[in-house]
Amino acid sequence: MSENSRPLDLLNAAKGKMILTELKNGHAITGKLVAFDVHINVTLENAEEKKDGETLRKLGNVFIRGDTIILISPTI
Amino acid sequence: MSENSRPLDLLNAAKGKMILTELKNGHAITGKLVAFDVHINVTLENAEEKKDGETLRKLGNVFIRGDTIILISPTI
Amino acid sequence: MSENSRPLDLLNAAKGKMILTELKNGHAITGKLVAFDVHINVTLENAEEKKDGETLRKLGNVFIRGDTIILISPTI
Amino acid sequence: MSENSRPLDLLNAAKGKMILTELKNGHAITGKLVAFDVHINVTLENAEEKKDGETLRKLGNVFIRGDTIILISPTI
Amino acid sequence: MSENSRPLDLLNAAKGKMILTELKNGHAITGKLVAFDVHINVTLENAEEKKDGETLRKLGNVFIRGDTIILISPTI
Amino acid sequence: MSENSRPLDLLNAAKGKMILTELKNGHAITGKLVAFDVHINVTLENAEEKKDGETLRKLGNVFIRGDTIILISPTI
Amino acid sequence: MSENSRPLDLLNAAKGKMILTELKNGHAITGKLVAFDVHINVTLENAEEKKDGETLRKLGNVFIRGDTIILISPTI
Repeated sequence: MSENSRPLDLLNAAKGKMILTELKNGHAITGKLVAFDVHINVTLENAEEKKDGETLRKLGNVFIRGDTIILISPTI
Repeated sequence: MSENSRPLDLLNAAKGKMILTELKNGHAITGKLVAFDVHINVTLENAEEKKDGETLRKLGNVFIRGDTIILISPTI
Repeated sequence: MSENSRPLDLLNAAKGKMILTELKNGHAITGKLVAFDVHINVTLENAEEKKDGETLRKLGNVFIRGDTIILISPTI
Repeated sequence: MSENSRPLDLLNAAKGKMILTELKNGHAITGKLVAFDVHINVTLENAEEKKDGETLRKLGNVFIRGDTIILISPTI
Repeated sequence: MSENSRPLDLLNAAKGKMILTELKNGHAITGKLVAFDVHINVTLENAEEKKDGETLRKLGNVFIRGDTIILISPTI
Repeated sequence: MSENSRPLDLLNAAKGKMILTELKNGHAITGKLVAFDVHINVTLENAEEKKDGETLRKLGNVFIRGDTIILISPTI
Repeated sequence: MSENSRPLDLLNAAKGKMILTELKNGHAITGKLVAFDVHINVTLENAEEKKDGETLRKLGNVFIRGDTIILISPTI
């Protein structure tokens, strides 16, 4: 952790990797992070929508609007 | 996926194709993507409003305000 | 659909025609579109407020604040 | 309706006249429109707060913050 | 009412007088208006928090964040 | 109260003193005001979270995001 | 506490230390603060999501969007 680390560094390092996004509506979307911007708009590949750990449906490619996101966590 | 990909690239590639938009009120709108802007305002052709997979009504042409959108997914 | 179409083109084409606006409070307003701006503030003539397809009341001229609008659809 | 009409034209024409404002909390305020600005902040004279058509109380002069307003309709 | 009156004129005229502020959480605060700014942040003296006309508690001096305010009305 | 008083003057005068902050989630935080900014982000020392007058827990130093604050009142 | 202290000073001092973040959805996230920005977007290491004091799950590295945060408190 350098003195000058910024929150977006975590997202930058997660590009091309699987992430978990938690949304304000209580759902989660997992998928491979393709792109993000300063509004935290993100696009994912192979995305799946989940609730309470259960897959609700497969979304494939998806654009998620940043203002609906609570948190993003790279998954192993 | 290039180093410089941006979230709006996904929407740009989806122009003229069928997409699914999920709204904050729990409804979904499907239709052919005609246009979008940086606020994620979108316009669709042949739009249908759906809830729980069931078509509620046919809307034809529709303008959706960006701040009501949770996610957008191109459909096959 | 041209390469450069923008979401507001749909609203511009709907000026002087009947539209349906869906609001975040679950109500809908129909009327003839008189004007709109970049905030999606709109003014309608001969407006009627509806819920579940039933007319609640006639509003005549009305100004609707853009941030309360979910979608706008030109009606036939 | 001219080509260049804007939504605020309706409010401008309503200055000094009775209007109805519907608020996001489900209440309505009626009164004579004194002033408004680009945020749709408005001030009214002889204002009355209503719910379901019934007068809850008389407010006299009142300032209403624009972001709480759903719609404004000049009344006859 | 001049042609060029603005909504903040009402608040300016109410400085040093008793006002009623209605908040989005359903409570009201009464007190003497000391200051306000363009965000409608306000400070009051001798403030009292009320609900359904009943005094919940005396607050003395209070700063109210503008985005929580529905309306402000000078009281007699 | 001078002609040119501003809302933030109250917060400035409260620096180093005990204040009460009411939050949009219905909780309150008391503590000694250390710093604030134009967003009304505040930091407190010896902070305690309360609900209905009862201390829920001691927080020590705390940063509160301005957009969650309803009101701030210096306590005696 | 200097005259010129700012709210972000508290977050700056907490870098590399354990913090508690309370979210608007009623959950809390604890973890080591890695980075933050002016939107109060934060990234944490060894993060755990909690509710009512109970650990719901371990998140590892996590990015939290600033507008979902109520408060941040360094923990001992």
